[in-house]
Amino acid sequence: MAERDLIEQLVIALKILPSVGPRSATRMAYYLLNNEREKAKYLANTLLQTLEQVKNCKRCNNLSENDVCNICVNLKRDATRLCIVEMPIDVHMLEQTQSYNGKYFVLMGKLSPLDGIGPKDIYFDKMLERSLEPEVKEVILATSFTTEGETTAYYIADILRKKGIYVSRLARGVPAGSELEYVDINTIARALVDRRHID
Amino acid sequence: MAERDLIEQLVIALKILPSVGPRSATRMAYYLLNNEREKAKYLANTLLQTLEQVKNCKRCNNLSENDVCNICVNLKRDATRLCIVEMPIDVHMLEQTQSYNGKYFVLMGKLSPLDGIGPKDIYFDKMLERSLEPEVKEVILATSFTTEGETTAYYIADILRKKGIYVSRLARGVPAGSELEYVDINTIARALVDRRHID
Repeated sequence: MAERDLIEQLVIALKILPSVGPRSATRMAYYLLNNEREKAKYLANTLLQTLEQVKNCKRCNNLSENDVCNICVNLKRDATRLCIVEMPIDVHMLEQTQSYNGKYFVLMGKLSPLDGIGPKDIYFDKMLERSLEPEVKEVILATSFTTEGETTAYYIADILRKKGIYVSRLARGVPAGSELEYVDINTIARALVDRRHID
Repeated sequence: MAERDLIEQLVIALKILPSVGPRSATRMAYYLLNNEREKAKYLANTLLQTLEQVKNCKRCNNLSENDVCNICVNLKRDATRLCIVEMPIDVHMLEQTQSYNGKYFVLMGKLSPLDGIGPKDIYFDKMLERSLEPEVKEVILATSFTTEGETTAYYIADILRKKGIYVSRLARGVPAGSELEYVDINTIARALVDRRHID
C-alpha cells in the first residue's frame, strides 16, 4: 500500500541499529511517529550533527570532535602507558572505570585470519609507530578475550617484545559480582592459573 | 570531557527508542559512528522525512501520507465492518494477517481510569460518530487484552449495543503454535470457556 511506503522505509532504516530486527524496528517506527515526534526529530538532528562533527582522532583513532582528541592532548595523562583497544567504544568503557590515566590507541578492528583481516586491514603500522615513541614505557593490550582478540593481542605482543617494549594484557578472571556456580569453566580454569598471592 | 559531548547527546537521544537503555544506546551510538556512517545518515534523513510527511488520517487516525488513508478511501474494502484498535501499529498487525478486509478506527489510546485517561482523552466521540455511520453493520473491538484494553472494549461495547450496533471482540484463546504446558492458566481457562464446537 502506498501509504506504507515511507513507514516501511523507516523500518528498514531502523534495522541498521545493532540487535534491532524487523519486529523491534516496526515497534520503534510506530512509537516515534505516534508518541514521540518531537524527540524523534531531536534524535534525527542529533544523529546528523554528530555524524558531521565527530571524526576519528588523527593520533589515536578515538572518536573526537577535534582533529586530535582530548585524551591525546591532555598533558595530565600518563604518556608512558599506552592502551591498545579494538574500537572507540572500548576507550569509553575503560574511561568509565576511572582507573586508567594513560593514553590509548584504537586499532579500528582486530586480526581475523579466517575472515581475511590481516595487519594491513587495521591500523597496525600506525599502532607500531605510536608504541615505539620514546615516552611509551608500557603497552597494555586490551583487545577482547575472543579468539580474534587474543590472536591480535599475541601478534602485537610478539612484535613489541622483540623491540624491547614492556607489554601487558588485561587480567582474565572471575567477573566482579559473580558466584562460581554461574561462571563458565574456562574462566574458572584461567582464574586458577592466574591466581594471585594474598600478602 | 568536551569531546564526548556530542556522542553523549546522541546516546541520550537514542534512549527515547522503546526498550533501549543506556547500555544499548551507547552501543548503538558507537556502532553508527564507526561502522555505518552512510546508513546512519540515511536513517536520520528517512526519520526526518517520515516525521514531516506521515500524519494521522483525518477519518480513522491511522498513519498516512495523505489526508485520508488508503484503507479509508479504498472502495474495495468492506465498509460494513469497522475494527476499533488502540494505535496505528495495531492496524499494521491486523493488515499483516491478510484476513480482514473491513475498515478501521484508531482510538489513539485506551481508557485507563487509574491514570486518569477517560473517553475525552482518546478519540472516543469520533469513534462513536464513525461507528454510527449507516453503512456500518458490525463493530469489531480489537483493543488489547490487558486490563485497560478490556475496560475500553467493554465500555465501547456497552454504549454501541444500546444504540443497536452489532459488536464483536477478537477471540481469546491459546496462541497458535503453543503447547499447553507453556500457556498461562488464565489463557487456558478462557479458551475452555470459549471452546468451539467442531462440526
